[in-house]
Amino acid sequence: MDEFELVSTFFDRPQGERSWVKTGIGDDGAVLKLVPGTESVVVTDTLVCGVHFFSTQAPCSVGHRALAVNLSDIAAMGAKAQWSTLNLTLPNLESTWIAQFADGLLSLADRYDVALIGGDTTQGPLSVTMTVGGYVNPGEALYRSGARVGDLVYVSGCLGGAAAALQRGEGQPADALREALWFPEPRLSLANKLRGIAHSAVDISDGLLADLTHVLKASGSLGADIESGCVPLFDIACEQIGRDRALELALTGGDDYELCFTAAPQSRKAISAVAASLDLPLTCIGRVTSSGGCRVTGLSKALEETELGYRHSWDVDT
Amino acid sequence: MDEFELVSTFFDRPQGERSWVKTGIGDDGAVLKLVPGTESVVVTDTLVCGVHFFSTQAPCSVGHRALAVNLSDIAAMGAKAQWSTLNLTLPNLESTWIAQFADGLLSLADRYDVALIGGDTTQGPLSVTMTVGGYVNPGEALYRSGARVGDLVYVSGCLGGAAAALQRGEGQPADALREALWFPEPRLSLANKLRGIAHSAVDISDGLLADLTHVLKASGSLGADIESGCVPLFDIACEQIGRDRALELALTGGDDYELCFTAAPQSRKAISAVAASLDLPLTCIGRVTSSGGCRVTGLSKALEETELGYRHSWDVDT
Repeated sequence: MDEFELVSTFFDRPQGERSWVKTGIGDDGAVLKLVPGTESVVVTDTLVCGVHFFSTQAPCSVGHRALAVNLSDIAAMGAKAQWSTLNLTLPNLESTWIAQFADGLLSLADRYDVALIGGDTTQGPLSVTMTVGGYVNPGEALYRSGARVGDLVYVSGCLGGAAAALQRGEGQPADALREALWFPEPRLSLANKLRGIAHSAVDISDGLLADLTHVLKASGSLGADIESGCVPLFDIACEQIGRDRALELALTGGDDYELCFTAAPQSRKAISAVAASLDLPLTCIGRVTSSGGCRVTGLSKALEETELGYRHSWDVDT
Repeated sequence: MDEFELVSTFFDRPQGERSWVKTGIGDDGAVLKLVPGTESVVVTDTLVCGVHFFSTQAPCSVGHRALAVNLSDIAAMGAKAQWSTLNLTLPNLESTWIAQFADGLLSLADRYDVALIGGDTTQGPLSVTMTVGGYVNPGEALYRSGARVGDLVYVSGCLGGAAAALQRGEGQPADALREALWFPEPRLSLANKLRGIAHSAVDISDGLLADLTHVLKASGSLGADIESGCVPLFDIACEQIGRDRALELALTGGDDYELCFTAAPQSRKAISAVAASLDLPLTCIGRVTSSGGCRVTGLSKALEETELGYRHSWDVDT
């Protein structure tokens, strides 16, 4: 049983009379119609030491990531972030560690004007949970379920950087790959400009193919043709681990916290304008089709022979 | 440095222009004025295995408590609960454990009509974080800061049961003490009836004297005279561990999740009516004074000689 089966088996019960739960479990965030005129969005993520970050990782990066992964989910919903809570479980009170952790977290919070309104500190094995609340205008949330046949598939930024940094192990130099792993930038500014343009969105936390598969399934068992040659990679990753491995990690690595979104072909110009205004690459990597899951084309012979070449419909690993 | 110093030193920064954060860090929950006509309340708590519950504890009780301790905070704010998120960190996927955990959590959620709208499951040392959102009508939230000189001090239910059960250790019989520890009842129904009556409220999670001290400090360095003979104890605790120890645990033990609230003397009759309507003891245990922290009167000679007898102003242990 994986995470998704666990949640759907034990926790995802029908909401019955609760028409105010517009979207519950299953998207990047929940959408609640609590009061007329606005929709609330709530997201939450936990980072466990040794699983989601190294014990030797800079504390400011742990604080940054704890908030960033949540803001990334807010962005994937096309929402604006307002408030956050912090649950910090610490084995002991090392005030230097905590001060640096707080700096990383609160710097990012300040940058996106997110209030830290409460939380809980407990004693135990190091882990961090944050919950973030935000809002969208009614009807403007971006869902995984909105993709349409013929949509173009776009991704922001470059992919596979965090996974490449992880593959190199600890003690990495402070280059673009470590930056991608330690200080991912939540794409809130992008989300803000995609409303009215994108039909669907997801953040790439589980890996491009896994997350795009979520979108295709939620949109009615659609498919997608992805041209591997279009997937934006980090030059430094190609140099250090080779293009094939860099591509494989970009397709399957996860922890990218870029947005993958779909939009009608006639939005191409508007998307170019958004990319230019944000100075952020937005790359078309393929197209939504009527069925068949993700198909990746243009793979090298070596990659064709890996799992990538054999599996046309992607199961989600967790 | 204790939990409170940690939070105030590193995380409690001024909210600046954010007038919508009516109450941030420092009460049982945060109160947000996000939209006109209502105030949102957000609370969050983490339970760590080995710290807040036993690894041998019934999973349904862990699920119940994870939600109950949060609903208790919602009650202490005088609010109504609406939604919850669950962050579950598990060392492995034991589906029997998870099924029972989910039953305990969702039974309580159903009872108070709280929607589980999302969450995160991760691999790691067993711990549970829940975040709960609710609302109050504007101006109706109950704060720690509302106590007034001359107010009567009330507590709901009986105190010290959870601490007595903990003192007995694991493998306890299914009696009233174990019930208090394993299945605390959040006092949402009480909170619902205290609006307009209580001036301040807090839930007794850190121990009566510690939590009442929070209230007195927040209300402007007030004091309180507590008559120890009035503190409601579990008969079975007095039988099993003696009245002095039962009283000591009721004053300092914590994990009670009852409400301690203050109200004007002229509300005495209304409070009796609330107690009768809910079939829940609401006991007056003392009175708010103008200064001096908590003073406990009527202690036995033995208890007078413990820390209880010596310390008139209570520091908060965490």
